[in-house]
Amino acid sequence: MDTDMMDVPETTIERLPAYLRSLVRAQADGVALISSSEIAEMAGTNAAQVRKDLSYLGELGTRGIGYDVLALLAHLMRTLGVTSPRRVCVIGYGRLGSAFIRYIMSEDRGFAVVAVLDADPSKIGILVQGVTVRSIHELESVFLSEDVDIAAITTPGEVAQSLADRVTLAGVCGVLNFAPVALDVPEGVSVRNVDLLAELLVLSFHLRFAGPKGHCADKGGLQ
Amino acid sequence: MDTDMMDVPETTIERLPAYLRSLVRAQADGVALISSSEIAEMAGTNAAQVRKDLSYLGELGTRGIGYDVLALLAHLMRTLGVTSPRRVCVIGYGRLGSAFIRYIMSEDRGFAVVAVLDADPSKIGILVQGVTVRSIHELESVFLSEDVDIAAITTPGEVAQSLADRVTLAGVCGVLNFAPVALDVPEGVSVRNVDLLAELLVLSFHLRFAGPKGHCADKGGLQ
Repeated sequence: MDTDMMDVPETTIERLPAYLRSLVRAQADGVALISSSEIAEMAGTNAAQVRKDLSYLGELGTRGIGYDVLALLAHLMRTLGVTSPRRVCVIGYGRLGSAFIRYIMSEDRGFAVVAVLDADPSKIGILVQGVTVRSIHELESVFLSEDVDIAAITTPGEVAQSLADRVTLAGVCGVLNFAPVALDVPEGVSVRNVDLLAELLVLSFHLRFAGPKGHCADKGGLQ
Repeated sequence: MDTDMMDVPETTIERLPAYLRSLVRAQADGVALISSSEIAEMAGTNAAQVRKDLSYLGELGTRGIGYDVLALLAHLMRTLGVTSPRRVCVIGYGRLGSAFIRYIMSEDRGFAVVAVLDADPSKIGILVQGVTVRSIHELESVFLSEDVDIAAITTPGEVAQSLADRVTLAGVCGVLNFAPVALDVPEGVSVRNVDLLAELLVLSFHLRFAGPKGHCADKGGLQ
């Protein structure tokens, strides 16, 4: 089945985390069976989309009965590769880096920060949630010793590409990029970009057409 | 021209921030004229895409000569609605909220945090970058007095929808949502979602097919 999953559309993959969250919530609420429309409502999509997306992962539900919450939850965790925690290295212990570390640590779902790197000598040695900040010069040895799966780049844009080069050379295939640059990486390496300023600018564009304050509902079509 | 812009594709709008950044950098470097391929390289796309995207904004470049950096920068800032700073209220002064505030304040490009709200009484009154944290109970009056354009919701998921309801009732048409829930908002209100856990999960999915460490480049096709 893993080979088939290489054909799962990216848009489907991007919806799987919301389904995982819906199932975690359903499980916490003691729900045993869940319908596609119940998953859809929690995940902000529609039932047909849920059924289609989940059909890529195998024969999972029963028509007229729904999905077994525990079984589907376990299957989604396997599919998303988080049955054991993914090992994350955060590069850059600044504003975003430190917030991101606390965020991951508090989420407690599939990810662990195993290393933190920074270029500023005054930050080396700081203990963050049980992890010591180490020098960026140690990147290669840290990635090897800590068996890093994912690198999160939270540095200024100017150094992001050279760090991405070192990260991929060190064998890491997943990069979460907070720096406002388009990273050039070898084929097979996955990059996800988080660009907060760009999100604000897109909102600002739409605001221009939203009409006077309190009248955005009059316009529509631009959501 | 503003009316025509309601037809600009969302994918084009989403690339405009990268073009804006390219032009800011070109201007800082003292460049007077810039080609579509130079913009494309900085923005991580291709020249044809840049020309097509920018053509939605009017007749801007000159064939064989390129774009006037200052004129295009000014035009993009007008298009993106940031000739004067957009007024942002950050709801939730926790990990993400405080990092996001410092991020906006340091970016100095088109956005200003004018209000911070939290439900925790112990946080009310804290001074953050010149703004005092106020009670979430004051949302409506703060939004009115501070003339808020954009609300950034950095709260836990459980309260995000009710806050989105209050925010839109208060007349705000742009929401940046960090909470891991799909917000239901009136037509015409724009929502952008930032979901860090979902980004990590998508990376983790791809890692499953990336092969043994250091061999992601062997697989491809999954970027």
